[in-house]
Amino acid sequence: MLKSPYLLFLGDAQDALTAKVAQGIKDWRPEFCVGQLRLPGCKADLGLKDMTIAEARAAGAETLVVGAANRGGVISQSWMASLVEAAEAGMDIASGLHNRLTAQKPLVAAAERAGVGLFDVRIPQEEYPIADGKRRSGKRCLAVGTDCSVGKMYTALAMERDMRDRGIKASFRATGQTGILITGSGVPLDAVVADFMAGAVEHLTPDNDADHWDLIEGQGSLFHPSFSGVTMALIHGGQPDALVLCHEPTRTHMRGLPHYGLPSLEALRDVSLDMARIVNPDVKVIGISVNTAALAAGAAQTCLQEIEARMGLPTVDPFRDGAGRLIDALG
Amino acid sequence: MLKSPYLLFLGDAQDALTAKVAQGIKDWRPEFCVGQLRLPGCKADLGLKDMTIAEARAAGAETLVVGAANRGGVISQSWMASLVEAAEAGMDIASGLHNRLTAQKPLVAAAERAGVGLFDVRIPQEEYPIADGKRRSGKRCLAVGTDCSVGKMYTALAMERDMRDRGIKASFRATGQTGILITGSGVPLDAVVADFMAGAVEHLTPDNDADHWDLIEGQGSLFHPSFSGVTMALIHGGQPDALVLCHEPTRTHMRGLPHYGLPSLEALRDVSLDMARIVNPDVKVIGISVNTAALAAGAAQTCLQEIEARMGLPTVDPFRDGAGRLIDALG
Repeated sequence: MLKSPYLLFLGDAQDALTAKVAQGIKDWRPEFCVGQLRLPGCKADLGLKDMTIAEARAAGAETLVVGAANRGGVISQSWMASLVEAAEAGMDIASGLHNRLTAQKPLVAAAERAGVGLFDVRIPQEEYPIADGKRRSGKRCLAVGTDCSVGKMYTALAMERDMRDRGIKASFRATGQTGILITGSGVPLDAVVADFMAGAVEHLTPDNDADHWDLIEGQGSLFHPSFSGVTMALIHGGQPDALVLCHEPTRTHMRGLPHYGLPSLEALRDVSLDMARIVNPDVKVIGISVNTAALAAGAAQTCLQEIEARMGLPTVDPFRDGAGRLIDALG
Repeated sequence: MLKSPYLLFLGDAQDALTAKVAQGIKDWRPEFCVGQLRLPGCKADLGLKDMTIAEARAAGAETLVVGAANRGGVISQSWMASLVEAAEAGMDIASGLHNRLTAQKPLVAAAERAGVGLFDVRIPQEEYPIADGKRRSGKRCLAVGTDCSVGKMYTALAMERDMRDRGIKASFRATGQTGILITGSGVPLDAVVADFMAGAVEHLTPDNDADHWDLIEGQGSLFHPSFSGVTMALIHGGQPDALVLCHEPTRTHMRGLPHYGLPSLEALRDVSLDMARIVNPDVKVIGISVNTAALAAGAAQTCLQEIEARMGLPTVDPFRDGAGRLIDALG
């Protein structure tokens, strides 16, 4: 559980895409962000106030979040002086990159001296139980995809935002490092040991008020051979009441696997329901979320209408249209 | 990869069941076993020659395998003197118990002095890749179950034995600690990190001769909410050509989950085929293995005949009848 508010560290990000984690935090949790810290040469800009570490600390920042990646997705040595300074100033440090904060000796020493925490959010921070499959109170919605990286996280975050706008109790539940950094907590499911995956998801989505919805971030796809086991654990650990099918209509093959075509939305619907009914006989597919970023506005509308007519389910691009129709369909 | 032959350590096992791992090794790999070591009070007996550590070493034993569990499935402190003596005599030590050999300080010190290895087979010993789903040469058969602990390991071991008796190239591929101790190698799949589960199974069942069969040990069940993700990774990493459905006909609920009933064999067949076809469009269910240990001989025969008539697939209890009809069905 990360302490907010954050100073977003953009490092020497070469473009906006390199700072997409920071952008995600700013988009979805602006109230967590007191400012941004950019090193010389940084080409990303979130439009937040540029701050030194001392200024951020004075403004109340509790955690410096590494919101950029260099080539290779690792912590750059050129960032180390800033990270050490932040620790010495009393800030926790959080990162979702591949190499660990806790493996950087100068940083570990500084953190120990200052009594601050180093949070590698790719690494599970807790021991999780083995799943027991018992029905829990409250409601849960899970995004499942025809592939990896088709907008499952975005869909769940957009639903949470729009539900809160309507006064509905809703919590996005992060299962990957970007989601964890955005919301400050969650389970890095792809790093959990196999036996405890479903238990970690149960732990993440506990008993709640009868009218509360968890919006669970999906991972992988039942149709993606590399990661389908993680998806399976999400379905059985999450015991969803509602499923949203997520799709990217221009994808020609499964991500990273040129020899695998994508499944149909019908196949995704059928197998997801079959598997989810094992833990929740009342589960329903309530709608479809299509990432139409690669299509022009007219083509996107046509695509959404075609899918809606074919599948008989509310079909939206939550980025273009908001998630309102999905929320209506939750019932 | 454990070095054979083994001295089977039974400790102070209170009954035969407590020494079931040792019994499994003796049943399936008798050629690996030079003798047994029993402490005072041991009530298990494999019918092997009782040996001291010095005698076993003189007879060529390379590894002492802890083949019993005490209450709680942990290494007993009363065994430590024997384990230290074996290490000092130049034997590796292997265990599948919950607490680690490598966490026992006197044993670690003795192993270092003697230059021998300590193998905790519950702990992955390698780094596994992310699965790429590419088709591999050779053939693979996977046992899938209506539940955990319905005879999947036994079925695969019996098929391997009977195939080798017929001169067919066949390799049992262990995915759990008992199977690893029996055959000396494998992947402890339930302890592998989520992202690498399917890759570990690919690594375990690599390209092989076109007429070679891997008999892959199953784990969990797609219908068991606690462990279904592990099963999913086995199906997609194993890319089976053949599936064997495994079942225990007297089970009234899923193992450890009194609130979950068992699926039908039809449901297991259909969902297993749906998921396996993603990685291998030619996959077939070739037969059914029923663990009838809880039934008298007549009732067992009736049960097998009923299932065979209903499902239209060869149905055997490999413990009572051998695995011959399953092998015939591999084609």
